[in-house]
Amino acid sequence: MIAYPLPDDAINAALAAVRFDADGLVPAIAQQHDSGEVLMMAWMNHDSIGETLRTGRVCYWSRSRQSFWRKGESSGQVQMLVEWRVDCDGDTLLLRVDQQGPACHTGRRSCFYRRAESGGLQVTEPVLLSPDALYGKKDPSPGF
Amino acid sequence: MIAYPLPDDAINAALAAVRFDADGLVPAIAQQHDSGEVLMMAWMNHDSIGETLRTGRVCYWSRSRQSFWRKGESSGQVQMLVEWRVDCDGDTLLLRVDQQGPACHTGRRSCFYRRAESGGLQVTEPVLLSPDALYGKKDPSPGF
Repeated sequence: MIAYPLPDDAINAALAAVRFDADGLVPAIAQQHDSGEVLMMAWMNHDSIGETLRTGRVCYWSRSRQSFWRKGESSGQVQMLVEWRVDCDGDTLLLRVDQQGPACHTGRRSCFYRRAESGGLQVTEPVLLSPDALYGKKDPSPGF
Repeated sequence: MIAYPLPDDAINAALAAVRFDADGLVPAIAQQHDSGEVLMMAWMNHDSIGETLRTGRVCYWSRSRQSFWRKGESSGQVQMLVEWRVDCDGDTLLLRVDQQGPACHTGRRSCFYRRAESGGLQVTEPVLLSPDALYGKKDPSPGF
């Protein structure tokens, strides 16, 4: 397990390896570090990567809200960073994380809860916490 | 384990759940179905998803070549589909696959072979097959 936060020069080395798209964003896959579950995919920009590596708590960039999206700030279900990885061409990140509770705004552990089967699309994951319980009466929309 | 190929109506139901971006693409995460390793991320369009679900062999869309990218067509390291999943808002796919050999064009098992550590970015995965062995003297560039 890697110790975060990282020092500034290591954060700069990580950022230098990232190839951001035309909007200054890069997709980040979140994977539960011990079980291997792929939990979600969201987007990061330069500053949200910097914050994540500095604090050890995952911060995305919300494309819909155009603002930082500190995972768990509404739901309480925070995502702590265990490993930060970048792919061969620098245009995708893999975050190995420790996710508390549901990662999905529907209250399921993973956002990938629908599977294509011969009978159609099947929901395979249970709701662990209702969106009402996660968000109260607030807007349950995720940060996409 | 899900039996592919799927019938046409199941393929249409899967496609109907996908929210393609302005370029008609959707990111697809490939995860080795038994070990849980996240191998790579690439892009699919409507027709490459259809082909993948019809044949059971993963076919991406190459943004750089603007053509189908049947994983393994140059390297021989094919990727067979085990499960096709779509996320809560339909804009990311998770392909649980059976990847033969290296998924990465550098000859490593996974494209996510670099990890941010306090001393800088570290390569953590060995080269299993050299790009020369994978591609002969052909262009070893991936299909991004």
